Amino acid sequence: MVASKRRRVGSSGTGAFTRVRRLPELARYDLQVIHEILDAATHCHIAHIVEGRPVATPTLHWRIDDRVYWHGSVASRMLKATGAGAEVCLTATVFDGWVLARSAFNHTANYRSVMCFGRPEVIADPAGKTRVLRRFADQRFPGRWDRLRPVTRKELGATVVLSLPLGKASAKVRVGPPDDPARDRDWPVWAGVIPLTQRAGPPVADSGLAAGLEPPVLAARARASSR
Amino acid sequence: MVASKRRRVGSSGTGAFTRVRRLPELARYDLQVIHEILDAATHCHIAHIVEGRPVATPTLHWRIDDRVYWHGSVASRMLKATGAGAEVCLTATVFDGWVLARSAFNHTANYRSVMCFGRPEVIADPAGKTRVLRRFADQRFPGRWDRLRPVTRKELGATVVLSLPLGKASAKVRVGPPDDPARDRDWPVWAGVIPLTQRAGPPVADSGLAAGLEPPVLAARARASSR
Repeated sequence: MVASKRRRVGSSGTGAFTRVRRLPELARYDLQVIHEILDAATHCHIAHIVEGRPVATPTLHWRIDDRVYWHGSVASRMLKATGAGAEVCLTATVFDGWVLARSAFNHTANYRSVMCFGRPEVIADPAGKTRVLRRFADQRFPGRWDRLRPVTRKELGATVVLSLPLGKASAKVRVGPPDDPARDRDWPVWAGVIPLTQRAGPPVADSGLAAGLEPPVLAARARASSR
Repeated sequence: MVASKRRRVGSSGTGAFTRVRRLPELARYDLQVIHEILDAATHCHIAHIVEGRPVATPTLHWRIDDRVYWHGSVASRMLKATGAGAEVCLTATVFDGWVLARSAFNHTANYRSVMCFGRPEVIADPAGKTRVLRRFADQRFPGRWDRLRPVTRKELGATVVLSLPLGKASAKVRVGPPDDPARDRDWPVWAGVIPLTQRAGPPVADSGLAAGLEPPVLAARARASSR
């Protein structure tokens, strides 16, 4: 996005993803920012190359420690392409608001974004898959996994789980008011920020649900509007 | 995303983007769905290939008739790469809610997503740039352009504006309750949808703003939570 006041976290500051610092070199604070953004984003977009052309596919992701995970059907074209060890870029973005300046040129958005690069690792064994899928469910909705109809071997076999380490991840964060230069600041137009937040509405129960079953609560770390 | 009950609009239904139908063949309804999703999404992700590797970059977009536009700095690495006529994929996604099923396997998300493929066209002349940038500002905040400090020739020169036709666009929409098979429907766990909507909060005025200036109103078509 057009962001003049952008703070780049976890990169060399040159803008070149080939030069982002590796995990051991990241400050604790940088990694914490990357974690928070990945946890807050409801979904991500994965860029991959299919038949020589770039494709950005929306998908659900989750994080465990210093890795980001995603999954899908073994029949998925994207997962077939990336499962074969090809490079991907996973980008998760939280949109925080519109930034209205005195000039069109300085309009922008407040947002938090993480990019992760690499060749995904495939989790092949059923026990490993079950372990990380449980974390996915429980991170969004604490305690949910144990209440669900247990996962079957057939379902695990039909599911591909992939992950990337956060060692080549970087974050970009744009916060705060517009950056109008001094000469524009008296221009008679409203300027400031219109914050946008994502809120959970009242749960809609499926038809035929037995009485007395309570909807799960969205985990605090999964709420995008934490700031 | 894992979506068993997915309605694909504007594609051949095979899942192969190389086979999406072209604009003249799209039903009016299909294009209207594509328009609505692009208008509702606050931002998009553009997949492009940089030095042989896929990259997904978040950016702001807008739509005029049957084209989608985006812009950035002439110094941007992404815009240099895509301005040179390389293929891109622009994907805009609106996240509508969590779909909680009786099994982990059938959990998914409700969402609306548009993918546009092609080689972007660059708008080179300043008058053409001004015309489409005005539409960008006014679509989000009606009447805003005329109140702003006028755009300068230097600013226009520093801005790249790109566009793609929607002829190779397709939409995916997942709506409604979970798709549990009959054998799972009596499992004693809450199932249904937790809707998520994006809302604009109270505007935050920039410091030093003169009294009596009113914040603009976000246009109805730019509200993501229209359904």
